[in-house]
Amino acid sequence: MTGPAAQPAGSTLSERVLQGDPRAVARAISLIEDESPQGADLIRRVFARTGAAYLVGITGAPGAGKSTLVDRLIGELRTVGIVAVDPTSPFTGGAILGDRVRMQSHVADAGVFIRSMATRGNLGGLARSTADAALVLDAAGKDIVLIETVGVGQDEVDIVRTADVSIVMLVPGAGDEVQALKAGIMEIADIFVVNKADREGADRTVSSVEAMLSLESFEGGRWRPPIVKTEATTGKGVADLVEALERFRAHTAASLGERRRARAEFRVRELMAHRFVQHVLDRVLKAGEFETLLDQIAARETDPYTVVEAIVRRSIR
Amino acid sequence: MTGPAAQPAGSTLSERVLQGDPRAVARAISLIEDESPQGADLIRRVFARTGAAYLVGITGAPGAGKSTLVDRLIGELRTVGIVAVDPTSPFTGGAILGDRVRMQSHVADAGVFIRSMATRGNLGGLARSTADAALVLDAAGKDIVLIETVGVGQDEVDIVRTADVSIVMLVPGAGDEVQALKAGIMEIADIFVVNKADREGADRTVSSVEAMLSLESFEGGRWRPPIVKTEATTGKGVADLVEALERFRAHTAASLGERRRARAEFRVRELMAHRFVQHVLDRVLKAGEFETLLDQIAARETDPYTVVEAIVRRSIR
Repeated sequence: MTGPAAQPAGSTLSERVLQGDPRAVARAISLIEDESPQGADLIRRVFARTGAAYLVGITGAPGAGKSTLVDRLIGELRTVGIVAVDPTSPFTGGAILGDRVRMQSHVADAGVFIRSMATRGNLGGLARSTADAALVLDAAGKDIVLIETVGVGQDEVDIVRTADVSIVMLVPGAGDEVQALKAGIMEIADIFVVNKADREGADRTVSSVEAMLSLESFEGGRWRPPIVKTEATTGKGVADLVEALERFRAHTAASLGERRRARAEFRVRELMAHRFVQHVLDRVLKAGEFETLLDQIAARETDPYTVVEAIVRRSIR
Repeated sequence: MTGPAAQPAGSTLSERVLQGDPRAVARAISLIEDESPQGADLIRRVFARTGAAYLVGITGAPGAGKSTLVDRLIGELRTVGIVAVDPTSPFTGGAILGDRVRMQSHVADAGVFIRSMATRGNLGGLARSTADAALVLDAAGKDIVLIETVGVGQDEVDIVRTADVSIVMLVPGAGDEVQALKAGIMEIADIFVVNKADREGADRTVSSVEAMLSLESFEGGRWRPPIVKTEATTGKGVADLVEALERFRAHTAASLGERRRARAEFRVRELMAHRFVQHVLDRVLKAGEFETLLDQIAARETDPYTVVEAIVRRSIR
């Protein structure tokens, strides 16, 4: 023992995370979720030991069966860490319950760690803490980290887009959905899953996605997203999905670094923004000054752009 | 004419916006969407003349019938501006089409201005440009600005939360949805709308929301969100919704300032973050330096927190 200054609490925690201790992992993710400085410190300590895990993002509309599919995937994959993004926002949720249910069936399996993350409602907070939670699981030795988002907005797309592979789940009968997908889906889906494939309309959903893909060019070795039909509740098709994942991983091995570099950029930008706002509120503005400025904006005596311009001028070199 | 320096293009545009010229409004919103400095300049010029419009946020799952309801509301309200948030992200979209359809039926009505906003995919960009677009419509003299979000994620919730009133739309038969709503809906719904009320299960949906509300306390004059049944396609119930909107507006007249102050805070924080990142990239880092740092992170030679700490130290006073 060399005293608290020489050996901060984080050092022991990071060592235990690197050893794969589930309690330490849970503690580390809690620190991250609370946006504690110890969380950032921990990431700094373990970061060099990350990068081995493969990050799998899964998204889709509510009710698409993501939780059930993830549950099935656990059985097919090696040591898995799961981050279930569980916004406290409306229209989503459900992961808390799903989490508990799954915990019961997999808690005995030492290779599996499941954790749901709640949103904080602050700008970018969810993407930030999800990324850090995935890093913790990576550092803890998980081969695969599944990031399951239980929402369908930009935030969730951001999260999934920054994974190593993105799975987009659809369900039959949601014709409007497929229509709506056309706009932006091409960018983020690496693999389509049509779940509940035993339902009426499954083939029609597959055809819709096929039709959409047929408009795109996949020349020059560009990956063409396969469409995998699954029945998550029975496990049918899950092996096909795992096979598609492996094919994608092999196909994109050479460009993985590029994808991860884009992820690093997103993170650095977001962290810079976050740290600056903290700095302004903690150090630049006098006590009560922020409140006064907001009052002046509310009273239309000034405007947000003028206020921000003045604050930024005072804050930067 | 005093030359371009004394009379920038923005001055004429802002005057025309304040006169309610639809072409100027369209141009102004385009500048905002492009994140042009002229857009910020325009907001600065018109901001003092905003605040009169009442901002109505409408959100709900895809297919809930938001566009049709908004279309109906236009007929019931005075001069209306509409911002349809139309993310290019998956699972959403649809507004572009809806926009066109509606344009045809209302283009003759000079009091109505409809504009869809696309996401830019950058952090907070959508919330920022939606808020500014609403300000432009406000400055142009619209009494009511409807902000329709065609998604169900955190981004959309952020947008709707910062309106003066938030309408959350549900459809019968989406039992899971109501379940899922429980977590966070209380915070943002001021009025519930159960649309497609002629469908089987409408009463069950209403009961579910009632049951949820019954768990909350509405003592001390706290607004209890009413549940309005509508059939947007026929217009049934739309008058009831307008009446509920008016009751809410009267009930919260005293606290409107507070709500708008919270909105100002969100905007200022977000703008500070955005401006700082721009400053770092344009002024602080040398050419190619950002790329080198990202490479080092990708190679695990350093980590995002260490990089950001160093950049922030160099950038701030």
